[in-house]
Amino acid sequence: MVGPSDAVARVRGAVRPGLTGGQPVLVACSGGADSLALAAAIAFEAPRAGVPAGAVTVDHGLQPGSAERAGRTAGLLRDLGLSPVLVVPVDVGPDGGPEGAARAARYAALARVAGEHGGRVALGHTLDDQAETVLLGLGRGSGPRSVAGMVEQRTAGGATWWRPLLGVRRTTTRAACAAAELPVWDDPWNDDPAYTRVRLRTEVLPLLEEVLGGGVAPALARTAGLLRADLDALDELAAAHLAALTCDDGLAVADVADLVPALRTRVLRGWLRAAGVRDLQAVHLAAVDALLVRWRGQGRVDLPGGAGVVRASGTLRLEPVRDGGGPPSAPHNREEPDA
Amino acid sequence: MVGPSDAVARVRGAVRPGLTGGQPVLVACSGGADSLALAAAIAFEAPRAGVPAGAVTVDHGLQPGSAERAGRTAGLLRDLGLSPVLVVPVDVGPDGGPEGAARAARYAALARVAGEHGGRVALGHTLDDQAETVLLGLGRGSGPRSVAGMVEQRTAGGATWWRPLLGVRRTTTRAACAAAELPVWDDPWNDDPAYTRVRLRTEVLPLLEEVLGGGVAPALARTAGLLRADLDALDELAAAHLAALTCDDGLAVADVADLVPALRTRVLRGWLRAAGVRDLQAVHLAAVDALLVRWRGQGRVDLPGGAGVVRASGTLRLEPVRDGGGPPSAPHNREEPDA
Repeated sequence: MVGPSDAVARVRGAVRPGLTGGQPVLVACSGGADSLALAAAIAFEAPRAGVPAGAVTVDHGLQPGSAERAGRTAGLLRDLGLSPVLVVPVDVGPDGGPEGAARAARYAALARVAGEHGGRVALGHTLDDQAETVLLGLGRGSGPRSVAGMVEQRTAGGATWWRPLLGVRRTTTRAACAAAELPVWDDPWNDDPAYTRVRLRTEVLPLLEEVLGGGVAPALARTAGLLRADLDALDELAAAHLAALTCDDGLAVADVADLVPALRTRVLRGWLRAAGVRDLQAVHLAAVDALLVRWRGQGRVDLPGGAGVVRASGTLRLEPVRDGGGPPSAPHNREEPDA
Repeated sequence: MVGPSDAVARVRGAVRPGLTGGQPVLVACSGGADSLALAAAIAFEAPRAGVPAGAVTVDHGLQPGSAERAGRTAGLLRDLGLSPVLVVPVDVGPDGGPEGAARAARYAALARVAGEHGGRVALGHTLDDQAETVLLGLGRGSGPRSVAGMVEQRTAGGATWWRPLLGVRRTTTRAACAAAELPVWDDPWNDDPAYTRVRLRTEVLPLLEEVLGGGVAPALARTAGLLRADLDALDELAAAHLAALTCDDGLAVADVADLVPALRTRVLRGWLRAAGVRDLQAVHLAAVDALLVRWRGQGRVDLPGGAGVVRASGTLRLEPVRDGGGPPSAPHNREEPDA
């Protein structure tokens, strides 16, 4: 159990190492325990680090009295000494379900405000959120990266997102708010079992804790961190190979084919993405990979959007979208199969 | 839903690609649906592939009538046409809990028999077992490899273990047994909630399925497969670096320090393991890694078992176990810190 003053010290200790470089920070604060504890810690530490720190609270306009609540949260944030404190109303669209639509509107608004203020956005995601994210990604089956969870800092969607509390438990943020006598707002959505994440938090993780004998959330977060290091290494190595092996004509077959499969797939994906190909599925990558390592003279591999890849003269080449008129009348200039 | 004859075809289709090379196969069969369906499929496919196929059933001697049951299972296996069919009684020791001790005794007996017959051991683990293994590894937090699940074929403990059914559902093996009118033995231990794996199977995975909307077991298995490819790639790259960077004196600091962290850690672990260091923890690897990349003149890093690593003249060297007498009287021949 973490005592109240311990809790405040832990949250402050989590934000301190990231408050460098002087770039302003804007804390995204819903008024809930996690983001409020984060706001209080940053309000305390940022002036000591010479970092300007403000806050944003988003009014999703989805619940009665949401504008008043946002106003009260803004008042709290000002009392903490953060400046500027902005209330940003958003229109939540209909796409992606209520959870997804609210999230999309919120992140777009935060990115816009961060852009206007030239700052990073600090988010209050905790170790418990990380565990939920890992479990959600695992259930999706969309690959190792989805199990690697959230990263402490990344730039995406036009803003830099900073999550300094990924190693801090939710019980600690709550204890920190209690110790500082900060009135916490408990979003009723956070307990609504209509949301997958809520059921992971309130049903699946407690059951896993019981069955596996405790320590599950830290275990999930630890595995995610180790996995992230491994996947970052592969991405970095693949990027270096891609830079070395790309020529004006395309990719040199022999050099790429020599790579281990996990690097080969990444090099191919990076090459096609850089060329503007979107919505690549595993099946497309497998077909392009077969041009490299299971070559028996096969023709063009069609890709989403209409472009295609051919192997010719020891090189993989990207062919542009065909301009109607069906398949070309003459076969491509093919190599003989290797075997 | 898989129809009965479909089920038989699926199990046969799963074993067929692996029945090559003529090396004998011994099916490990408990009499349960998974290993019985496997035995039936191998009994059908192996003669067509020119592969000798026998079976082993282990009598753990832990339940009343276990010898009779093992005898009945052996009879079934002989009726399927497998030969030889062996009943191997084992003594289950007290270490590692009932589940762990029975598994250890079983695998040791299977490895011994496989060694005597010069064959691989075929095991009936299914996609559902794989999902349980991934979840168990995730909850343990011991790193990405523990989430990567079981591999289709590996050599360990003196035997080669072949798991051809990792892509087959448990419902399919059961349907295959029903279709072939094979009497399935349901081990009461498989439903005993005293075992972690049983509770994962009967409580956690069904809840996850419900919360995440189905498809969880295949998703876990798919992620494990992709993850395995990534981790294998890193291990392979690290092994190549280790082979290139090891010299008589030790490891060349500059070359190893240039590697990305995920490779560096693997190279260090591989080097120390090859030198006979056991029970390495993350904390030891971090201290040795600091000799490479956070060098400020620090001394010997002590390792489990009494050996140690020092940095001297641009090389990491392994020092043998000290022969008592406390710390050496003179400091090691140290380089100046880099910074």
